[in-house]
Amino acid sequence: MRAVVGGIPGVGKSTVLDLLRARLGPRLEVVNYGTVMMDEARLRGVTNRDEMRRLPAQVQREIQASAAKRIASARAEYLIVDTHFSIRTPQGYLPGMPLHVVSAMSPDVLVVIAASPEEISYRRAADTSRIRDASLESVREELEMEKLFAVAASNESGAPLSIIMNRQGEAEKAAGELASIMGVRSR
Amino acid sequence: MRAVVGGIPGVGKSTVLDLLRARLGPRLEVVNYGTVMMDEARLRGVTNRDEMRRLPAQVQREIQASAAKRIASARAEYLIVDTHFSIRTPQGYLPGMPLHVVSAMSPDVLVVIAASPEEISYRRAADTSRIRDASLESVREELEMEKLFAVAASNESGAPLSIIMNRQGEAEKAAGELASIMGVRSR
Amino acid sequence: MRAVVGGIPGVGKSTVLDLLRARLGPRLEVVNYGTVMMDEARLRGVTNRDEMRRLPAQVQREIQASAAKRIASARAEYLIVDTHFSIRTPQGYLPGMPLHVVSAMSPDVLVVIAASPEEISYRRAADTSRIRDASLESVREELEMEKLFAVAASNESGAPLSIIMNRQGEAEKAAGELASIMGVRSR
Repeated sequence: MRAVVGGIPGVGKSTVLDLLRARLGPRLEVVNYGTVMMDEARLRGVTNRDEMRRLPAQVQREIQASAAKRIASARAEYLIVDTHFSIRTPQGYLPGMPLHVVSAMSPDVLVVIAASPEEISYRRAADTSRIRDASLESVREELEMEKLFAVAASNESGAPLSIIMNRQGEAEKAAGELASIMGVRSR
Repeated sequence: MRAVVGGIPGVGKSTVLDLLRARLGPRLEVVNYGTVMMDEARLRGVTNRDEMRRLPAQVQREIQASAAKRIASARAEYLIVDTHFSIRTPQGYLPGMPLHVVSAMSPDVLVVIAASPEEISYRRAADTSRIRDASLESVREELEMEKLFAVAASNESGAPLSIIMNRQGEAEKAAGELASIMGVRSR
Repeated sequence: MRAVVGGIPGVGKSTVLDLLRARLGPRLEVVNYGTVMMDEARLRGVTNRDEMRRLPAQVQREIQASAAKRIASARAEYLIVDTHFSIRTPQGYLPGMPLHVVSAMSPDVLVVIAASPEEISYRRAADTSRIRDASLESVREELEMEKLFAVAASNESGAPLSIIMNRQGEAEKAAGELASIMGVRSR
């Protein structure tokens, strides 16, 4: 069972994934798509992310595709690809799971973790370790874009799409919903 | 002229299609995509829908594609594929016209039948023969998802997308709009 | 750098593009996708747009693809493809950058020029040279559809998507944002 799980910064995705890991132990493998891409890039002599971003677009596409195929061949009982369906960049919203990647990855389900714009804004403002746009207007737009890009990836791949609301203080509930979508059975 | 017509349960799609059938008689053929898929599955020894759903994903995709190709080769003057652009399932919103299906089917136009959330909610609550979520919140989300998945299918196939509002007591008007979109001429 | 720039009639796209042309001079080439398609059609003996629209769908697709490939091979320092992501027609919203076109064109960035529905409605009503729906309801729907189709094209091509608000009296600011997205450097 391969799930692609996206969510914009501040929705609490890591917390939800940690709770699921606590439930499933070694049956669950969580891979970060960006990390797998970087592993693939290293095989081609690239040493860091800045260098990867400066590669020709065609080479970056090949790295994306190799990473997607490596994930598609993973043999975990439950595999989660931790990623974003869209990433806000100076050039605009960059698709995190574009057609050629989601096709190569062939996931079973797609999941977007969402939260209330107010909570996300609050969490971003409180996290002084990173500079991120904490305005409600920006958070609302990012949430909307994450959903729209996920719908596109869903229709391109044929994999069903769930949107899970991670409400304040209810991360356990969100983790339970994710487990249910992934068809987790207790053994 | 091949039209793919979707709409969530409760929008009154069947009523609109019945009215169009009454206008066009044998010039119109309406096929249910799920039924055509089941016909294809039977050729492979599958005997019911539950069995079909338990087939490996790859086999289901092949059945979907065969059904789409059979529809693409139909020779009706006006052909309507009665379907959904997204289907709410326990795994999330399942695309009804994913890329590989809509490409193989190559429709001329895509149409979503919509209605006011209040009317849909009322109709669902009144239909005691089926258990369906009649909450306004759920209906609104399903309507939104139906539209978003239809846009994705439209851009993937290149076929134009219309959204027809089926207002209370105006199903004849909706049927007329559908006829106009399909380029129906009186003879 | 190839940018596909869309926007519904009345957003002030031409003004923004003219301002960018004034900044960049011959470094910028702006091509209208419809014009390039018509050029391709002429090579096949088609003499006007009405004739092109009456061609079999398959031939129109080939013309679209040839035009996209010609654009993909252009060698301008900055190339803008002036187009729409969706076009309102009697058959519904027609995708302006469907999958097969945006794949062949392989743009670096996608941009939607937007504006407030009120301003667009006002401009459309004031432009008596063309008959266009100036109702706020219609303008809002067209703006929404332009964005949704652009998201689909973005996920299909992998190119990032920006939405630039062209506010009343601030077209210079919008042109500056477009320049920045395209990575324009002064020389």
